[in-house]
Amino acid sequence: MNVDGVPTRTVRAFPDEGWIEIIDQTGLPHDLRWVRVDTLDGAVHAIRGMQVRGAPLIGATAAYGLAIAMGSDASDSGLRQAVSALAATRPTAVNLGWALHRMQARLDPLPAAARAAAAWAEAEAIADEDVAANREIGRHGLDLLRRLRPGGDRPLGIMTHCNAGWLATVDHGTALSAVYAAWDAGLPLHVWVSETRPRNQGLLTAWELAQHGVPHTAVADNTAGVLIQGGEVDAVIVGADRVAANGDVANKVGTYLKALACSDSGIPFYVAAPRSSVDLQCPSGAAIPIEQRDGEELRVVHGVDAGGRPSALRQLPAGEAVGNPAFDITPARLVSAIITECGIYPATPDGLQTLGQAGTQLGKERT
Amino acid sequence: MNVDGVPTRTVRAFPDEGWIEIIDQTGLPHDLRWVRVDTLDGAVHAIRGMQVRGAPLIGATAAYGLAIAMGSDASDSGLRQAVSALAATRPTAVNLGWALHRMQARLDPLPAAARAAAAWAEAEAIADEDVAANREIGRHGLDLLRRLRPGGDRPLGIMTHCNAGWLATVDHGTALSAVYAAWDAGLPLHVWVSETRPRNQGLLTAWELAQHGVPHTAVADNTAGVLIQGGEVDAVIVGADRVAANGDVANKVGTYLKALACSDSGIPFYVAAPRSSVDLQCPSGAAIPIEQRDGEELRVVHGVDAGGRPSALRQLPAGEAVGNPAFDITPARLVSAIITECGIYPATPDGLQTLGQAGTQLGKERT
Repeated sequence: MNVDGVPTRTVRAFPDEGWIEIIDQTGLPHDLRWVRVDTLDGAVHAIRGMQVRGAPLIGATAAYGLAIAMGSDASDSGLRQAVSALAATRPTAVNLGWALHRMQARLDPLPAAARAAAAWAEAEAIADEDVAANREIGRHGLDLLRRLRPGGDRPLGIMTHCNAGWLATVDHGTALSAVYAAWDAGLPLHVWVSETRPRNQGLLTAWELAQHGVPHTAVADNTAGVLIQGGEVDAVIVGADRVAANGDVANKVGTYLKALACSDSGIPFYVAAPRSSVDLQCPSGAAIPIEQRDGEELRVVHGVDAGGRPSALRQLPAGEAVGNPAFDITPARLVSAIITECGIYPATPDGLQTLGQAGTQLGKERT
Repeated sequence: MNVDGVPTRTVRAFPDEGWIEIIDQTGLPHDLRWVRVDTLDGAVHAIRGMQVRGAPLIGATAAYGLAIAMGSDASDSGLRQAVSALAATRPTAVNLGWALHRMQARLDPLPAAARAAAAWAEAEAIADEDVAANREIGRHGLDLLRRLRPGGDRPLGIMTHCNAGWLATVDHGTALSAVYAAWDAGLPLHVWVSETRPRNQGLLTAWELAQHGVPHTAVADNTAGVLIQGGEVDAVIVGADRVAANGDVANKVGTYLKALACSDSGIPFYVAAPRSSVDLQCPSGAAIPIEQRDGEELRVVHGVDAGGRPSALRQLPAGEAVGNPAFDITPARLVSAIITECGIYPATPDGLQTLGQAGTQLGKERT
């Protein structure tokens, strides 16, 4: 995606220097701030503290984090410890485990001296493949969106949740890749951006869409029902942190409520995700751990003060009991289709098995 | 309800002085501030600016506002203008129109000189009846809650939305009246309090529940699905701004999403409202106007700074397009029952007709 007109990835690798640069997304939408990550601890902090977020970007950052770690300790125990530390940062997204597993499989057989270079190369491959996959997701998503017909003269209404955009990936985004592809192809559309409390990733989505010039309206999460009921929305497209083998989808908390509203009004609910977010080892949503995050995310709100300085206010006392589950499970029966780089698949065991085979096929063609 | 241990109504009338005192709820939960309203404009501002909110309290405040107005201009045109100004403050709740209609019917036949005293008496009657009705709602609601059986050893899990409590009424609340009755009767329960963006009326609910000592947890609106899915919630109880003759319910935006989640998990979704919130003249939810409020409510967030001073921060630029519908319609088919002061009724045309007749009967008994 372009930022201020310049094609930009969300993570930049400097293998020779042994570091990466990431956008500290906790400063957005007010402050686009690049930070350097040059230690394993820094990578762990970046993922756990949600400086980077979104399943695909978490996977790529973890891979780079392992490459950084190999620069200081590439022994067997160093590799093992780095993988453990990175794997423990976030529990729900599957891409994290997938990327680390792939890195470990590549590095384990190598002598310690060869690991750092191989790790950087493998991490770069993961990032490149993410970019390519997301471009394909956009292409397939565009096919789906072309088939939708909005009522009257209005543009196609697309609602999304959280941020499944450029900022959630290395480039293009997943759900938003389809939106960008449609916009670039000249399809008149309007995006309804759900705020996504408590972390407000919807504000990142609004920021991205504004950068790309896509018309959009920000709304409170609570409005999904009335907007879908009222015929303003022709489809909901979201990303996924993990898709189970039966088609259940783990995604940012609130996704399931949107899927229910789509089902009740008979409009499609699409999930856009790379094949690496599909976990065929996971039988159903019930087996996906739901991350419980710090209650301060709900108790404290963020913005900029009158002088434009980032600041925070307390809306609930520190002692107030707060629950903060970060994800929910959308049952497969509510998912109209899963848009991947390999094509569009039904959210069924058979559909995902076919996708798994297509992926293997794709993997073979690449090697 | 007790505030700091003292039984307190949310609106205090001083007919001899020609004013009322209300709680400026925009300062809660950080600051319990009573303000004096002694002009028609003040009453209009209090309702439109949401210093007072909640359908029953809006109705009572409008009635008092008319009494205040009669103190300065009790002519036919003064009466007409005051009714118009108050009626135009908020479009969705039916209690507003209901209270003004009742006041006008009482005042119209009187000579101007007799109107102010009669208006104060009628407004006081409306407030007293609200208190009595809400107490009865609590009694009937308790009957319903006693029949629910939580799984395992845990307390009964009740989720609510917005604030349908003491602060939304003259006393006791509607949905929360049932909760208070159950808690006072010794039923072990736990309330899940939905934040209710963008105005965060859930924080008022948390404040009220804390004042009364009822165990509760504040959560983001997005969590309703995962909590209901996960079996943490045995029933959702909300208030209503208007119930149509077919049982459709207009209530704070986000209510419909909770009703969908209840239906999907097979748990009851109850609406607690006084008979005055039932509008038999309104055929269905499609005929209820949905208030669109100022986008700044979404763009600007509120809290207290490190020094405990109320303050605001901007989370979206003033130019960012924002949608802010304040209510949604929950279709009757998703409503398990309507809890009123006259008893528990199904959300069906027949059920509400029967309620209408029970109400008329009740009215006759009272006169």
